Amino acid sequence: MSKEKITSIAELGEFGLIDRLTEKIKIRNKSTIKGVGDDAAILEFGEKQVVVSTDLLTEGIHFNLMYVPLQHLGYKAVAVNVSDICAMNAVPRQMTVSIALSSKFSVEAVEEIYKGIYTACERYGVDLVGGDTTSSLTGLTICITVIGEVEKGKAVLRSGAKPNDLLCVTGDLGGAYMGLQLLERENEVFKVNPKVQPQLDGYDYILQRQLRPEARVDMIGIFRKTGVQPTSMIDISDGLSSEILHLCKNSGVGCNLYEEKVPLDFQTKKMAEELNINPLVAALNGGEDYELLFTVAQTDFDKIKNDPDITIIGHMTEASEGTNLITTGGSKIPLIAQGWNHGK
Amino acid sequence: MSKEKITSIAELGEFGLIDRLTEKIKIRNKSTIKGVGDDAAILEFGEKQVVVSTDLLTEGIHFNLMYVPLQHLGYKAVAVNVSDICAMNAVPRQMTVSIALSSKFSVEAVEEIYKGIYTACERYGVDLVGGDTTSSLTGLTICITVIGEVEKGKAVLRSGAKPNDLLCVTGDLGGAYMGLQLLERENEVFKVNPKVQPQLDGYDYILQRQLRPEARVDMIGIFRKTGVQPTSMIDISDGLSSEILHLCKNSGVGCNLYEEKVPLDFQTKKMAEELNINPLVAALNGGEDYELLFTVAQTDFDKIKNDPDITIIGHMTEASEGTNLITTGGSKIPLIAQGWNHGK
Repeated sequence: MSKEKITSIAELGEFGLIDRLTEKIKIRNKSTIKGVGDDAAILEFGEKQVVVSTDLLTEGIHFNLMYVPLQHLGYKAVAVNVSDICAMNAVPRQMTVSIALSSKFSVEAVEEIYKGIYTACERYGVDLVGGDTTSSLTGLTICITVIGEVEKGKAVLRSGAKPNDLLCVTGDLGGAYMGLQLLERENEVFKVNPKVQPQLDGYDYILQRQLRPEARVDMIGIFRKTGVQPTSMIDISDGLSSEILHLCKNSGVGCNLYEEKVPLDFQTKKMAEELNINPLVAALNGGEDYELLFTVAQTDFDKIKNDPDITIIGHMTEASEGTNLITTGGSKIPLIAQGWNHGK
Repeated sequence: MSKEKITSIAELGEFGLIDRLTEKIKIRNKSTIKGVGDDAAILEFGEKQVVVSTDLLTEGIHFNLMYVPLQHLGYKAVAVNVSDICAMNAVPRQMTVSIALSSKFSVEAVEEIYKGIYTACERYGVDLVGGDTTSSLTGLTICITVIGEVEKGKAVLRSGAKPNDLLCVTGDLGGAYMGLQLLERENEVFKVNPKVQPQLDGYDYILQRQLRPEARVDMIGIFRKTGVQPTSMIDISDGLSSEILHLCKNSGVGCNLYEEKVPLDFQTKKMAEELNINPLVAALNGGEDYELLFTVAQTDFDKIKNDPDITIIGHMTEASEGTNLITTGGSKIPLIAQGWNHGK
């Protein structure tokens, strides 16, 4: 096998690096008047609202390059921000990406990150319209800002839930957390004996949930098609408990969440059993699932009841009733936020 | 004197820190429908174009906390991005700020940075509408994205300059670079003998140019009022030479820059003499002046000729004539880019 070429960043120079990174950009939206190559990007929207979200990811805090492939890292950095746009009921359109990296990274390494970024751009129909590439003394930092559009009056905040609204979630929960536990376990084994092959077989789904999560852009289309207008919405970055409490606090309501309704995948449950973790705890406190948590008026029940991707997990109540988890055994216990990561 | 209270970030918690940092936000623009406190910001523009610019600043590369006060750092981080918006002939409106910091920073330190950020928001009429605060293993990183608005057809790119257009610059050049030289000299002295008082007297202007530069938002108003529509524009972050070459390359033209016309402040010249540096070199290659470099058609000459803040430093030519510096002695030498910093 031939050795892959390693180019130092110094060799290319900063402008050279930027040219190399941006030459593959494709513009997909009519609203992108001017993308990279000037001091700023120009976007044009008719009677639409513009939605902006930004995230900063740092090495050793948000990701561990010991087990996160750079391409997945780039993809995930985009997906996480696109997920925030979806949580507003908006469609992602443009994005800026800034990356700071130390001299330990080669041009090829940066290109790997961008490969993931461009794959995500393609997947989500987003235009990369600007950014900054710079050096750092140590480690890798990625800052992404995504801009989305939404028709006036259609944006969904965290604050619109009413008592008796149905509490819904897309997909399943806890998988990203169990995927991380698996990766960390194998990383520990590797540190002790680098010759041991990692045991990842049969866990592709939860690994993908952790390493290459998807934003639920598809749901925004489904909401449009079925005429569902959520009353409040948030994406699940910190864990179900924490996000429910955000909706309740911002909307001034309480809620009953039913343990038995929380959607869990088979692999999540299997891994949890193997590691002696309660899978419900992974769902409640795990985070990074990037599913959408939203409320709808009961009158919208018929529009969502047959969607296999939407689970009704509870309902909102008067604030005075508190925020409760109703266990499978029928006990009512207060819901506690215990975000485990640095999300939002 | 009473000791100032030091609160650890762990003590406040992430949400507590964010609350503390955002409680002073004032919304100034009607177009800000929803600022911080949700997954993303909502902005609304009628028949306007939206302009977005982003910058990532890292400790040890873009700033040295040995001599940069945190408040100035926050201010400058905003000014630098606002400057990019101005360079599009747009008015800055909204901003997102993301900060990653290691445990060596106290809450008070972060608040100092934000104090500078809020001062700049006030100065430039910008709304802080979102962001992210997170930890890093080492050092401080700031990522800022500014969004501006401009009427359709009024945005100015780097690519519109024509032969015979006048090449103009606002303010004076080289000051930020000479201010940095002064700070670095005093820092070296301090490292050898911490008891020596820094010798900064009489250099307040160039220190301010380096530590607390201003974006030329005022010029955008003047362009509107006087009916000047620049044919191309860029802000001076990397040094005059480099920026002129950007305009020429993007517009497909050449230029003649006249040495004797390059505006230099008295303090810039004095410091340059003291340090035995040619002040023209500071202007050409120094960078970080954040003045606007732009071209106008000769028919606009009357509109700019009496503005004391605008200097005509040359004119554009056919591309075949090259990019030249005409020295005071009358020699024609090729203009060379020699950006010294990491800007753009």
